[in-house]
Amino acid sequence: MDEITITAPADFHVHVRQGKMCELVTPHVHQGGIRTAYVMPNLVPPISSAERALEYREELRRLAPDVEWLMTLYLGPDITPEEIRKAAKVGISGVKSYPRGVTTNSSAGIEDYGVYYPVFKAMEEEGLVLNLHGEVPSDPEKNISVLNAEKLFLTHLRKLAADFPKLRVVLEHATTAEAIECVTSLPSNVACTITAHHLSLTVDAVVGQPYHFCKPIAKEPRDRQALQSAVLSGNPKFFLGSDSAPHPSGSKHPHIQENAAPTACAAGVYTSPFLVPLVAHLLEGFGALDKLEGFVSSHGRTFYGVPAEKGKRDVRLRRTGKEGGMVPGLIRGEGAEVVPFWAGKQLGWEIIS
Amino acid sequence: MDEITITAPADFHVHVRQGKMCELVTPHVHQGGIRTAYVMPNLVPPISSAERALEYREELRRLAPDVEWLMTLYLGPDITPEEIRKAAKVGISGVKSYPRGVTTNSSAGIEDYGVYYPVFKAMEEEGLVLNLHGEVPSDPEKNISVLNAEKLFLTHLRKLAADFPKLRVVLEHATTAEAIECVTSLPSNVACTITAHHLSLTVDAVVGQPYHFCKPIAKEPRDRQALQSAVLSGNPKFFLGSDSAPHPSGSKHPHIQENAAPTACAAGVYTSPFLVPLVAHLLEGFGALDKLEGFVSSHGRTFYGVPAEKGKRDVRLRRTGKEGGMVPGLIRGEGAEVVPFWAGKQLGWEIIS
Repeated sequence: MDEITITAPADFHVHVRQGKMCELVTPHVHQGGIRTAYVMPNLVPPISSAERALEYREELRRLAPDVEWLMTLYLGPDITPEEIRKAAKVGISGVKSYPRGVTTNSSAGIEDYGVYYPVFKAMEEEGLVLNLHGEVPSDPEKNISVLNAEKLFLTHLRKLAADFPKLRVVLEHATTAEAIECVTSLPSNVACTITAHHLSLTVDAVVGQPYHFCKPIAKEPRDRQALQSAVLSGNPKFFLGSDSAPHPSGSKHPHIQENAAPTACAAGVYTSPFLVPLVAHLLEGFGALDKLEGFVSSHGRTFYGVPAEKGKRDVRLRRTGKEGGMVPGLIRGEGAEVVPFWAGKQLGWEIIS
Repeated sequence: MDEITITAPADFHVHVRQGKMCELVTPHVHQGGIRTAYVMPNLVPPISSAERALEYREELRRLAPDVEWLMTLYLGPDITPEEIRKAAKVGISGVKSYPRGVTTNSSAGIEDYGVYYPVFKAMEEEGLVLNLHGEVPSDPEKNISVLNAEKLFLTHLRKLAADFPKLRVVLEHATTAEAIECVTSLPSNVACTITAHHLSLTVDAVVGQPYHFCKPIAKEPRDRQALQSAVLSGNPKFFLGSDSAPHPSGSKHPHIQENAAPTACAAGVYTSPFLVPLVAHLLEGFGALDKLEGFVSSHGRTFYGVPAEKGKRDVRLRRTGKEGGMVPGLIRGEGAEVVPFWAGKQLGWEIIS
């Protein structure tokens, strides 16, 4: 098989940022083969009203008119049941929850789900999706670290699923065998996104390489194996959400300071410009190429209720030749630059344009 | 208590490198309060003969004449029982074993302990110490990663201890609760060094901060707790080996390349210039200041048989005032520079010079 046609690939978790970076990366989404993109709301300040989400969508449409942009709100004190009903009316798709302080721009994240139960009730009634960054904050006193933060979040996921049986809930960017097992065991209103890079990395590749550092961090080989097995299973609960998260290369490097600690590196891995070829390459690597269409298109589309007609927005891939599919070491734009995942390495598939 | 006097502090695991870096960092050992230093042999090429170890010692003596330098050989094919006997005669103290590829300059490391049994036998007879970097190489097929590499090494430690009951063995830079438990359970010929930075860091501080990246990596809060408890216990099996390992700041940052992946960051944390004040500061933080002399001096000296007379090479510490004990963000030398641990932060103790 040297060519593959996929019906309108979709990325159900992407960061396209603001300003110059937004201008650089937004067109990359289409370039990477994505036709429907579910946009994260962690801007500065966060997107906390339907109105702002629509404004942001206009900007994204202008930058990449051929992508269907699905918008979200950032769960926080501004999100009320009234705002949810307003959002539903104007076509906002979901609400993203960040535990406070866990990742990029999450300082406005939530501390307690209980206070948001009226919001979740409204979401359940209006058909909005709840997207969960599934990590509890680290706490040395309780032995909570980046290693077990996701596993310990699963209690919250189980409780939300039980308390809101008709609310669609997505555990975002799962990284552990325990998360895969938990989502598999829950009813069909609970789904799970998996990133491309977590199908490839383990913790060994993260320590010592800031460009592989993201939250949640990649875990043990057995965890990567569990993510791959979830894709291989063809279970429609599991689908692509790239969590493609560009950072200026400056913020991915420690900066030495005369009288202060070196700066820490930003968390995020950037995969948008090559996303569908990368996923094809990785799936082929573990014998799951026949699951590509389900993973990058139909599973997520069915869950979100955004079907695509075959033939209208298809993406065709072909095998790369000897020189093709090389990922550059750096992507430069006007006033922004970003180092992509897989930099300097070859992909086995490329998009036929 | 505003002053502490310690009898001749010793660091039983330190890297002082070669060339310009050696010239910069070797005097830091004394400056940090250390009077006896046990020197790692992972130069390029590794120190694989008694003769080279003595040459290296001459260089270190020239750079820091007031430190007693204890020398080691790098376990590899050049180390024969004959070389061990020669080394013993000229006062070499021990042999360091690196599993292949696990850390800085370990590409000549060993793959199988069995072939070195005649060497270990000679070491046992001659009274040389065996220093173990206690990690097995990562292997995704077996779910071995930087997270469980030390735990899985303990089988080898137990076997060596059983097979050579009179060989003194040191598990270097322990990072896990399991390692502490294992060493505690083994006979008195087995001891364990603990670094300053592993008494402070957890894995959360390592991901995203290359200056906190070293091998073995810092683990979970419960592991840090176990290291602190080992110090608190006053058990003489546990003593300071800083694993202070300077790297040029360039090698601690990822470098973007046009057509290749960004470079990975070197593994190592640098603590020498402030070592004894840093250890005092950290021990005080978990209520172990009364264990300072045992941890930084007498325990290791007893194990290695290098006693120190009280009053001869004492180091006196005092509490820092409001402005004192600030660790700089960068230490510059001629042709070399290094970012220290604790950069930009204050230490509660300083050396009275």
